[in-house]
Amino acid sequence: MVLNVIIAEAALELIPIQVLDHPSVRNEARRRGVEPRDMLLDRSIHHAAMLKLEEHFKRGRPDLVYLTLLNATSTPLYQDGKAKVYIHTRDDIVLDFAERTRPPKSYTRFRDLMQQALFEKPDSGLIRVYDSTVKQILQRTGSGPKIGLSVQGGRMRLDELATRLGDSKESGVVIGGFPRGHFEPETTEGLERLVRIDERSLDAHVVVARLIYEVEKLVRGVG
Amino acid sequence: MVLNVIIAEAALELIPIQVLDHPSVRNEARRRGVEPRDMLLDRSIHHAAMLKLEEHFKRGRPDLVYLTLLNATSTPLYQDGKAKVYIHTRDDIVLDFAERTRPPKSYTRFRDLMQQALFEKPDSGLIRVYDSTVKQILQRTGSGPKIGLSVQGGRMRLDELATRLGDSKESGVVIGGFPRGHFEPETTEGLERLVRIDERSLDAHVVVARLIYEVEKLVRGVG
Repeated sequence: MVLNVIIAEAALELIPIQVLDHPSVRNEARRRGVEPRDMLLDRSIHHAAMLKLEEHFKRGRPDLVYLTLLNATSTPLYQDGKAKVYIHTRDDIVLDFAERTRPPKSYTRFRDLMQQALFEKPDSGLIRVYDSTVKQILQRTGSGPKIGLSVQGGRMRLDELATRLGDSKESGVVIGGFPRGHFEPETTEGLERLVRIDERSLDAHVVVARLIYEVEKLVRGVG
Repeated sequence: MVLNVIIAEAALELIPIQVLDHPSVRNEARRRGVEPRDMLLDRSIHHAAMLKLEEHFKRGRPDLVYLTLLNATSTPLYQDGKAKVYIHTRDDIVLDFAERTRPPKSYTRFRDLMQQALFEKPDSGLIRVYDSTVKQILQRTGSGPKIGLSVQGGRMRLDELATRLGDSKESGVVIGGFPRGHFEPETTEGLERLVRIDERSLDAHVVVARLIYEVEKLVRGVG
């Protein structure tokens, strides 16, 4: 089986044109010796600049994307090629990681890799970058279950969900890669249903770790 | 119940005196406008400088400590005050996080906080910093089970281990906060036993996420 994990509407983007001239952006660019347009938007640095951006509360959280990605790719399921990871951004750019690719563990190297990937949009190698909606990614992941995880979904036990996903040759699970708010209608379009796995709202990196672990229990028989 | 999670011999330290003058250290200090002695040792930046340090392969991985810490503190168990986290460094310095304290999600802010904590060693507030061995931490965590996780331990299912830990009023679990190698004899001294939870060697942040999830299942009854 293959579990396709889609980190959707991820809060990952290059500095938008509206804030290229903001002092927090220009200062960082000068300090790092790079162009403002080559940098990632990051709330922990560009908070003041972001206030003028649309839906700013959902944006500029590369740390969150990093934690979520690493919690997926550090697992035996991923290392065995039984989980595949896509980062889908709110601009419908997809970073498609080749099977078993290990992203850098160091945050700084992760950041530099993401900047480069979003700027250069390579279409081969360990990360392919292309334009795609979540629906389009799901269409390519076979006929298995396609589930979105959201506090707006119906409650389901995570081990039950894992059984459902792990029983299919190929399945897709969509997790929000943003700190607040809900999926856009375009994101949920290709989904069979939305599922809520906890009565609390959990961070995306916690959800990914738990989901993959439950699927692994079935597939690898560990416990 | 309270689960005391001790991230032991963590690869977290200020730049050691032997490499203060290395070009990779001085360049970073100049770029960031700080003193070399105020910075964390980081293999992704100071690799060449580290080669002359003793046991360098176990050191300089603040990224790994960050991932492990965040995977503990982002969980409902921690947020309910039922897990407590200690970072113990190889120099026997302990960072003792007050109940429910949320460390910064941004890696850069985490790094700055760790630098400050190790340099100033505050003894009050959200993080107390003091000298202590792992054995001494465990002595203060009551009479419950004290388990170390290691590939050198005897195989036990993680859900069984969680039951054993979750059944006690207070228990201690020790996880290696380093990328390679094994615990020092001083670390395992206060332990009842070493347990291996997977046939593979798992990253510390994966272990923490899985362990806390299994304990949560018992304590919160989620699944």
